[in-house]
Amino acid sequence: MSESATRRLRLVLAYDGTEFHGWQYQDGCRTVEGELRIALAEIAAGDVETAGASRTDTGVHALGNCALATLETRLDCTEVQRALTALTPADLAIVECREAAPDFHPRFDAVEKRYLYRVNTAGDDPVFGTRYQWWVRPALDERLMHESGQALVGEHDFAGYRNRSKDEPEDTVRRIRAVDCRRRGDHVFFQVIGEGFLYRMVRNIVGTLVEVGRGRFPPARVAEILRSGDRGEAGPSAPPEGLYLMEIAYPDTERCAISGSPPLF
Amino acid sequence: MSESATRRLRLVLAYDGTEFHGWQYQDGCRTVEGELRIALAEIAAGDVETAGASRTDTGVHALGNCALATLETRLDCTEVQRALTALTPADLAIVECREAAPDFHPRFDAVEKRYLYRVNTAGDDPVFGTRYQWWVRPALDERLMHESGQALVGEHDFAGYRNRSKDEPEDTVRRIRAVDCRRRGDHVFFQVIGEGFLYRMVRNIVGTLVEVGRGRFPPARVAEILRSGDRGEAGPSAPPEGLYLMEIAYPDTERCAISGSPPLF
Repeated sequence: MSESATRRLRLVLAYDGTEFHGWQYQDGCRTVEGELRIALAEIAAGDVETAGASRTDTGVHALGNCALATLETRLDCTEVQRALTALTPADLAIVECREAAPDFHPRFDAVEKRYLYRVNTAGDDPVFGTRYQWWVRPALDERLMHESGQALVGEHDFAGYRNRSKDEPEDTVRRIRAVDCRRRGDHVFFQVIGEGFLYRMVRNIVGTLVEVGRGRFPPARVAEILRSGDRGEAGPSAPPEGLYLMEIAYPDTERCAISGSPPLF
Repeated sequence: MSESATRRLRLVLAYDGTEFHGWQYQDGCRTVEGELRIALAEIAAGDVETAGASRTDTGVHALGNCALATLETRLDCTEVQRALTALTPADLAIVECREAAPDFHPRFDAVEKRYLYRVNTAGDDPVFGTRYQWWVRPALDERLMHESGQALVGEHDFAGYRNRSKDEPEDTVRRIRAVDCRRRGDHVFFQVIGEGFLYRMVRNIVGTLVEVGRGRFPPARVAEILRSGDRGEAGPSAPPEGLYLMEIAYPDTERCAISGSPPLF
């Protein structure tokens, strides 16, 4: 690509969410989209536009969030990927860049997403890695959490598992394809794959399953919350530092897959 | 212990070194010793004195540094340990507290110390865990590094492996009991046990072994640096974020031991 013309580039991003005020651009705040735009402006002739697939919250991490960038540049995709990674701060990397189809939209075209949630059950006083996981002190029964979580698979009204937000949709029915919970040493990993998620839905699911896993909620409560739609019956939101947006599937990519070996840093 | 009298307490400390300007108290700087003294002052009647075993540098972590605290308090050791952990910031924990022998000194009585150095060889653009490890891009030959490191075991003049510092001792002979290098997935862990270490000595050893492991130095160079005493022949210092002071052995404790399963956070 040697001519400078308006380009539509599809980016895959990884970031440590700790020091970002979430994904979405906000004047005067350090956000992922804001840092991305600053870097894009360095390589672009003229204006830059961005659109993200998923507006992650403050403290939430991503290994595979997706964005569309519209800009003029003569750089080819490999050069854009390298330049953006060099120009963005150390806690944000662009792991993939390719030309987007003319009608591609990262949010509306997403087929499904996979989230991972990381819990650490080791020790009393965590000193290390507090930005990367939720420390849960009591022993957690990962088999019971895995089994209880299966009640969430399929199409359900998840009103009981969301928090209210300004632009919450009226329709609270969502489809979850897989819920997985497994242990790896002191870590317990949750993975959830679904077509779409309501605000705080994954963190509320994890918060509820952890109440089951520590014996405070009976396993049947997981399904009862679906039936009642009562957020007050669910567990507290699991904190943001344990949550990772791992991958987003599009019609032209592989579907999401549960990982047998989630990453440790 | 119900009477308030001057007590000498032996503390074991764990800390994430990233946001500390090292161990040693300095006016106007956030240091581990400084934060410890602030917490001690909260539980003490009157003045507080502290002495540390090892003056770790900025960014260097500890799971088992040791300190002596002299103070008046009615709290028993378990209460002191809990109170100090609650009163110190989240990146500093007191993992053990007991009465010290009348003549105990954490630095002069130390029999040996174990350091761990953590390298990550995965991926090109690290986004996560950059405060906890050194990212080395090329493939590293851990067996070659392990074998080359054995030349350091025993009593040697380590002048070639130290950096100069203000209060550097004249005598640069030290005894190393064990050097170990092993892989665990994408991680490569170095462990070094020795009776004492010169300034930057562990980081310079790791920096040199990594040059061997990536094929830039021949293995024989490790011993040549001992013979020549020439710091210029050794590799660059490995960065502080990968280094952990794991444990310190005293006459009344177990000796240090190479861990088969170093921690991941």
